[in-house]
Amino acid sequence: MSGANLTSMSAAPILVVGSVALDSVRTPFGEVVDALGGSASYFSMSASHFAPVRLVAVVGDDFPGEHCALLESRGVDLSGLERADGRTFRWRGEYAAELGHAHTLETQLNVFSTFHPRLDDTHRKTPFVFLANIDPDLQLEVLRQIKRPVLSLSDTMNYWIARKPDRVLDVLREVDVALLNEEEARALAGETQLVRAADRLLEQGARAVIVKKGEHGALYQSREERFITPAFPVHGLTDPTGAGDSFAGGFIGWLARCGDLGPNALRQALACGATMASLAIEDFSPRRLVEARPEEILERLRTLHGMMHFDLLDPFAAPR
Amino acid sequence: MSGANLTSMSAAPILVVGSVALDSVRTPFGEVVDALGGSASYFSMSASHFAPVRLVAVVGDDFPGEHCALLESRGVDLSGLERADGRTFRWRGEYAAELGHAHTLETQLNVFSTFHPRLDDTHRKTPFVFLANIDPDLQLEVLRQIKRPVLSLSDTMNYWIARKPDRVLDVLREVDVALLNEEEARALAGETQLVRAADRLLEQGARAVIVKKGEHGALYQSREERFITPAFPVHGLTDPTGAGDSFAGGFIGWLARCGDLGPNALRQALACGATMASLAIEDFSPRRLVEARPEEILERLRTLHGMMHFDLLDPFAAPR
Repeated sequence: MSGANLTSMSAAPILVVGSVALDSVRTPFGEVVDALGGSASYFSMSASHFAPVRLVAVVGDDFPGEHCALLESRGVDLSGLERADGRTFRWRGEYAAELGHAHTLETQLNVFSTFHPRLDDTHRKTPFVFLANIDPDLQLEVLRQIKRPVLSLSDTMNYWIARKPDRVLDVLREVDVALLNEEEARALAGETQLVRAADRLLEQGARAVIVKKGEHGALYQSREERFITPAFPVHGLTDPTGAGDSFAGGFIGWLARCGDLGPNALRQALACGATMASLAIEDFSPRRLVEARPEEILERLRTLHGMMHFDLLDPFAAPR
Repeated sequence: MSGANLTSMSAAPILVVGSVALDSVRTPFGEVVDALGGSASYFSMSASHFAPVRLVAVVGDDFPGEHCALLESRGVDLSGLERADGRTFRWRGEYAAELGHAHTLETQLNVFSTFHPRLDDTHRKTPFVFLANIDPDLQLEVLRQIKRPVLSLSDTMNYWIARKPDRVLDVLREVDVALLNEEEARALAGETQLVRAADRLLEQGARAVIVKKGEHGALYQSREERFITPAFPVHGLTDPTGAGDSFAGGFIGWLARCGDLGPNALRQALACGATMASLAIEDFSPRRLVEARPEEILERLRTLHGMMHFDLLDPFAAPR
């Protein structure tokens, strides 16, 4: 465990509200049963490499203490992790050879079905906030409770876009940056071309969107700026679960750590997101994120930077 | 026409062997009938912005003089454009709303069916060579005729991978860089994961491959290096025909112009490829490539560079 560098003096804390789950996942490379999962878990493990994380979620009375210990080993503040009577939220899914899309076999909301995030005073004043993929009505409840943060980021999924598109758009308008995957952006915007879809979401009131494109990286687009990161090329893809939340953790983690929201910081934040996502998918559950050493994260960041960085020459300058 | 800057004193000439065709294309944004098309046409229009181009192809006796004039307006040397008795190669296709894949309605090889590239002494000694998408047996005929060039680049298509996979691999092993799209790379390598597919092609003897990913950019991979460019985000996508050949023109065009094959030059070459592809798809036929002004190309290059360029900070350096 590399818990030693968690609480950098300069890094601002991050609040995450989302799910903590027990996942049973099968991929062509193996399977796990009742492993630690959920958007808030992946996010926390990822972001904790950059800044202290405060987690708000709910688990049942069957939730193993070892999972809490693992989160705490990464310095995650679990004072907001509610323990309710009943069973923990469970997800069971599998991926085919292409690994592109999860096929959900079973979702048991359990204690999550009656969850309403309760934020204490410390939670409310956290400067960086991630609203992980939960019911947009719950996301709006959180937004009503918090003091205006330095940066808020939201995630969602097709399930909510199909059922509550207006609520998803309400969240989109409230947060600083909205995270969506390609399909979700297309569905919510009603546009097949990705660049137009991002534009359309801005017209609909989003301040900035990040479109996650899986193995093709991610696109950040605000009214003023557009940045792109490729994905970090992974050879040992094992389980794509949690890639998006791990991306979010690297993205907001870097911003919380560097204390800058300028263009250079945003571009590096995308690269940090891509880096953390590449680690997450190399093993089941957020195991790889727990093990990752700072040198390893830095090495991937350097590789990713090196793949795209060049000094631009003017092709039409006078012949040399 | 911006023919004035074609023949930069420093740019090395490029030979292209491929098809010159009459295309009839329909997209949701309009249609053209018997417009100038073919891999060598798109490539030439694109590359001519960077370096002088020598074209080797065949057309029939019905090929309009105005198309030759248009190519010549961009300084393209047509001394290798054979005129055969019969009709010019024709392709008819359409794109659905997604614009991802062309649906071929009709292919008439016509004079192309008996084409064998005949290279004169000047052609043989050209330092940069692009083997556009034609029968791999013809590509091998060209390779046998030419003097070892500074850089050779090949393209292909699924049609040949399905029918002559061994010949396609023979070409791959002979050239310096092999260009494929995502599907072609997966089909030829027999690997669904793109990073593994690229690795597999290198194991099979390729020196370097570029995998074109359409709106997701392109990946260059050799045994030593891996570079990535995003696509230039286009709002006015009109007709994707010729995007790959235009990419090839920008890629090899920049290398021929800058006279450098180092990592910085290769990364900029990818960006030049993405830039020229983005222009090509904004109109039917290679019209946009003909009109493009140097300032416009430079502006797109700067935008593309700006979307990904950042100064990397070490997240784990001592707190500031």
